[in-house]
Amino acid sequence: MASLDAPDTLWTLDHIRQHIEEGLPLVPLFNIDVIEASPERGAVRLREGEHVTRPGGSVAGPIQFALADVATYALILAARRDEAAVTVDMTINFLRPAMTLPLIAVATILRGGRRLFTAEVRITEEATGRLISQATTTYALSQPV
Amino acid sequence: MASLDAPDTLWTLDHIRQHIEEGLPLVPLFNIDVIEASPERGAVRLREGEHVTRPGGSVAGPIQFALADVATYALILAARRDEAAVTVDMTINFLRPAMTLPLIAVATILRGGRRLFTAEVRITEEATGRLISQATTTYALSQPV
Amino acid sequence: MASLDAPDTLWTLDHIRQHIEEGLPLVPLFNIDVIEASPERGAVRLREGEHVTRPGGSVAGPIQFALADVATYALILAARRDEAAVTVDMTINFLRPAMTLPLIAVATILRGGRRLFTAEVRITEEATGRLISQATTTYALSQPV
Amino acid sequence: MASLDAPDTLWTLDHIRQHIEEGLPLVPLFNIDVIEASPERGAVRLREGEHVTRPGGSVAGPIQFALADVATYALILAARRDEAAVTVDMTINFLRPAMTLPLIAVATILRGGRRLFTAEVRITEEATGRLISQATTTYALSQPV
Repeated sequence: MASLDAPDTLWTLDHIRQHIEEGLPLVPLFNIDVIEASPERGAVRLREGEHVTRPGGSVAGPIQFALADVATYALILAARRDEAAVTVDMTINFLRPAMTLPLIAVATILRGGRRLFTAEVRITEEATGRLISQATTTYALSQPV
Repeated sequence: MASLDAPDTLWTLDHIRQHIEEGLPLVPLFNIDVIEASPERGAVRLREGEHVTRPGGSVAGPIQFALADVATYALILAARRDEAAVTVDMTINFLRPAMTLPLIAVATILRGGRRLFTAEVRITEEATGRLISQATTTYALSQPV
Repeated sequence: MASLDAPDTLWTLDHIRQHIEEGLPLVPLFNIDVIEASPERGAVRLREGEHVTRPGGSVAGPIQFALADVATYALILAARRDEAAVTVDMTINFLRPAMTLPLIAVATILRGGRRLFTAEVRITEEATGRLISQATTTYALSQPV
Repeated sequence: MASLDAPDTLWTLDHIRQHIEEGLPLVPLFNIDVIEASPERGAVRLREGEHVTRPGGSVAGPIQFALADVATYALILAARRDEAAVTVDMTINFLRPAMTLPLIAVATILRGGRRLFTAEVRITEEATGRLISQATTTYALSQPV
């Protein structure tokens, strides 16, 4: 997507949060909040909400995938200001059922290259700190630096 | 989840569709239909609907993940009648932006073992046949055969 | 690696085989033969040889990884003539133990883009046709087209 | 593989090293040393040796895959004493070319379950500490606890 923003857009946490909520309607739909976006880390929180369970009552895989993807996108917006970056692939390991909300997903950089940006994401229960799932994902950047 | 069904539950397409729509609220929310469930193949269709786009207007990654996951779950219900099977991991490759709905996701068996069930999923635009994304996923079965 | 070849190098099967055997010493070491390289498919065969087993006597995972990687590289050489393409990531699913050599690995295109090239690989026992493992891999091309 | 060892086998580092070198001939072939095996971590070192390069001179992907797989196997032997555990799948991200040996691969636990064991592996250049590649892998255990 061509950027509509001026080149000097300030990609502050507030701006990143607003950009994501407008561009990704499933983010407000599922009560996902972007809580951190710095050049080193992106983080989101899944609060109580509807529609997020799977058979058995735990948080469904697609919701966890969304947390990992959005945390990484917030990281890339802060680190590279590249809103047209796109997900190339993701591998997600579901380690334990997530029974207790909120969940926190934190994305950190494995490698930020010219064209590709690879991150690791860990999703934990906020109350217990238990590791729920782990993902690695690669994005293609639209604006090679 | 312990099965509430009698052992002789008929896992017909209608029963599988109903089971999935009740257990996974994001399925009706996103207008995902289970359209095939046999011991060889599971398939779902994403119809027009709200909430499914990402920045740029294409279908968001988490929605595609949901299609792949539900198509595989439908396959496992038909092949193994194991409603308590859980996703261990999934790798998804996003190949092209999906601009035209409906999308079709078809899951086929790579290996159906005693404890693990591995499937490949291909997601295409129904109108054009273009391959949009491809996934492989492993489920843990709850009832080793 | 900067190409030493003239731009009009003919990437025939023989040239591809020779290029791979010289550049990847583990290919002759393990008796891996490049048997097909066309713009649509790359294929290699693992013949009888030493050093390839794991505890239990089946073909070790790293050898299967090598088959998948080399089959994809042969495909990319034939399709793009890009000898400096590099593996970005690979996911490999080990489905059944490989007890009977030779093995055949066939790589096919999922998407050949300007910068990224994604392939699927299936490894089978030649004698039985049994599917042993399946992989998806993305390469970064060095010469965007 | 059925264990030939008595149930009280001591899976010390020396025993694990010997077991791996005998069972996986590619380990001594490539000069891979098991340097740590505890219930929390497995680690291996790739020393200078032949056969390990790819076009361009860096360490080939299959060798890095071998490092990740062996580090995880050493971890599982120390944590579970299960020599018949088998790799279900692995995803490996190649982040930077590895130009300087030795390499160190360290496997840590993401989840050790009854039937499945999932680990993350990070491969670095020993001299520089640079992260070369990252992998996640799931093993199936043979002896559910």
